[in-house]
Amino acid sequence: MAVGVSKLPEFYPVNGVRIGIASAGIKRVGRKDVVLMEVDKASTISAVFTQNQFCAAPVQIAKKHLGECGARYLLINTGNANAGTGVRGLDDAVKTCAVLAEKVGVSVESVLPFSTGVIGEYLPVEKIINALDEAIANLDVNAWSKAAEGIMTTDTRPKGVTRRLELSSGIVTISGISKGAGMICPNMATMLGYVACDAKIAKPLLDKLLSIAVNTSFNRISIDGDTSTNDSCVLIATGKSASDELQEGTADYLLFAETIGEVFKELAQAIVRDGEGATKFVTVAVGGAKDSSDALKVGYAIAHSPLVKTALFASDPNWGRILAVVGRAGLECLDVNKVSISLDDVCIVSGGQKCTSYTEALGQEVMSREEITILIDLGAGDAAETIWTTDLSHEYVTINAEYRS
Amino acid sequence: MAVGVSKLPEFYPVNGVRIGIASAGIKRVGRKDVVLMEVDKASTISAVFTQNQFCAAPVQIAKKHLGECGARYLLINTGNANAGTGVRGLDDAVKTCAVLAEKVGVSVESVLPFSTGVIGEYLPVEKIINALDEAIANLDVNAWSKAAEGIMTTDTRPKGVTRRLELSSGIVTISGISKGAGMICPNMATMLGYVACDAKIAKPLLDKLLSIAVNTSFNRISIDGDTSTNDSCVLIATGKSASDELQEGTADYLLFAETIGEVFKELAQAIVRDGEGATKFVTVAVGGAKDSSDALKVGYAIAHSPLVKTALFASDPNWGRILAVVGRAGLECLDVNKVSISLDDVCIVSGGQKCTSYTEALGQEVMSREEITILIDLGAGDAAETIWTTDLSHEYVTINAEYRS
Repeated sequence: MAVGVSKLPEFYPVNGVRIGIASAGIKRVGRKDVVLMEVDKASTISAVFTQNQFCAAPVQIAKKHLGECGARYLLINTGNANAGTGVRGLDDAVKTCAVLAEKVGVSVESVLPFSTGVIGEYLPVEKIINALDEAIANLDVNAWSKAAEGIMTTDTRPKGVTRRLELSSGIVTISGISKGAGMICPNMATMLGYVACDAKIAKPLLDKLLSIAVNTSFNRISIDGDTSTNDSCVLIATGKSASDELQEGTADYLLFAETIGEVFKELAQAIVRDGEGATKFVTVAVGGAKDSSDALKVGYAIAHSPLVKTALFASDPNWGRILAVVGRAGLECLDVNKVSISLDDVCIVSGGQKCTSYTEALGQEVMSREEITILIDLGAGDAAETIWTTDLSHEYVTINAEYRS
Repeated sequence: MAVGVSKLPEFYPVNGVRIGIASAGIKRVGRKDVVLMEVDKASTISAVFTQNQFCAAPVQIAKKHLGECGARYLLINTGNANAGTGVRGLDDAVKTCAVLAEKVGVSVESVLPFSTGVIGEYLPVEKIINALDEAIANLDVNAWSKAAEGIMTTDTRPKGVTRRLELSSGIVTISGISKGAGMICPNMATMLGYVACDAKIAKPLLDKLLSIAVNTSFNRISIDGDTSTNDSCVLIATGKSASDELQEGTADYLLFAETIGEVFKELAQAIVRDGEGATKFVTVAVGGAKDSSDALKVGYAIAHSPLVKTALFASDPNWGRILAVVGRAGLECLDVNKVSISLDDVCIVSGGQKCTSYTEALGQEVMSREEITILIDLGAGDAAETIWTTDLSHEYVTINAEYRS
């Protein structure tokens, strides 16, 4: 299941980025399960990774390599997360990087490994190594849509966004892909998001851009509250566009940052729309909070409540469940007599009790929609946060009970 | 669904407690939905209530009345929670207390109201008042099993425990009942638990006993992580036994406290065994923690993880999901190389990676059991905590999607 219809865009190629796909047969023979991204030597690269303390071997190696030199190759595999695999997992990740590095003539530290799939099984190193020649041979600037498909696991559809932007000194291109459908509650980034542009941006500014964009996109979605061991998000700037280097505070920078923010948000929301078993796309908008932390506490408590999520699945306006979650969200100070709750444009609770205008029929109508916004006003301040999430359906249980992802 | 088989015990009556049941027809005509407990004038009563900040009207009134004088009557209804009902809800709760108080000749503050059922609908005051005469007429020392049935909502079976205890100065009797199957993650107590004994205990000591017993029973269970607006747990000591007043530190006190602890634990576990859609009874035992807070963080993170719960439902030894939860549980310091995980007697993870002795067949065998203990050792200290929970099944989704509880 998935919410709405979605089609990959016609990706604009990003000058300085080539992508090669291959079949390693990790889980199924013939499946495209290896994606190789080559980035130009002059590129700057920023990345954020999961804060799960059991972070996977490739996450540890990618962090280390990125700290040592500018990366030239991203080596991504699906079907195996190489997580919970101890020292051997680290060795395996380095080995795939080393073989690739030798084939393409770069240092091993120039390769960043990324893995997604089942946790606790050793990486099929030989299979991946055997697929490298195919991936290298396929390197192409026009392979973004193949890459979006190549990084899928339990996803039912590929996810991608592409933009072209006219800055004062020239045109800049941004293309990005993401994947994810379960074990989604990213804390830093989500496995996997890759966005590349051909703008010229210094590393500190690129880091800042990535951090801001992630915090209002991948770090604001939750399908099941389970943060993965492998979440990774990468932002690449090849500098190949004719435009000038971006400088903070300029109109060009503001326009660019806004567009990057939109690209990230769209990629993150695409993951929610493809959430495991999702039948609804739910925006939880919490306002009137004392601070951002309170708004997030309430937002995530609602996004993770099985009772709210099953009511959403059933299109049942059982709003008492939402009210109960607000009350148990762990806020230090909450004046329940100031809390308001609406579903889209229908006021349900005002001043802590049922709105006089509310009728079951109004609630039923709004809950039947495929996209719903739950609006909470805590009446305590000016802070606001938005979380995107899904409902909890039979299909979610089926997917996670019957398949070993 | 429910785990295992369960039968109510033959309750020992508690001298000084009479119970009367009646049908008010709140949700269905003929259903026993009102339970009245009368306690002797000389009794001491302790109670703990939900910490959900949207606590229901009866919770607010019961707290207030209990603070003002010793309670004589507990008036319990199912089918309506009288929560999210604002000022009118408070008035409604007081009104039912006042009418009962006049009928039985006590002050209104001597009546504690308790409600459970749907949130956000006004209490059917007249229906409850009309049922009071029947409840009063039925008052009987031998109605504990009827009371256990009378407080059920989505429960599939009544829950009760009864004990007789020989102290140095005489015999003491303890009987208790509980209810609950969904919206279960108590924070102070769970709706509803009532335990009475005929021991002589001063109020401060009874408060202390209740607090300790609740913190290792009702406050350590979770079915869906959703803390109710109406959780309440009451401990009554009528003092009608021939035994001497209990004094802290004596052998009698220790024996009594241990037994009270067992009664509470059994009542709390009975709620988990009857969890909505439950097919497994799962003990999450976290040891080797720096402190109790860390152990609870990990325990609840596992108990609330949809991915772990669906794997339990499927009897799938997908232990990577457990490891991923430990890593995202939010501990400030976690040395993943010291973490061990076992399922019952099968070692799965040791030193942060797969045990060499582990095989999928061993994992499969233990996961097929109806009662499973997930043992986590964090290797960081001596603190330990235990949580009891259930799996997440299709039945859970069906119950909460298809019915308005």
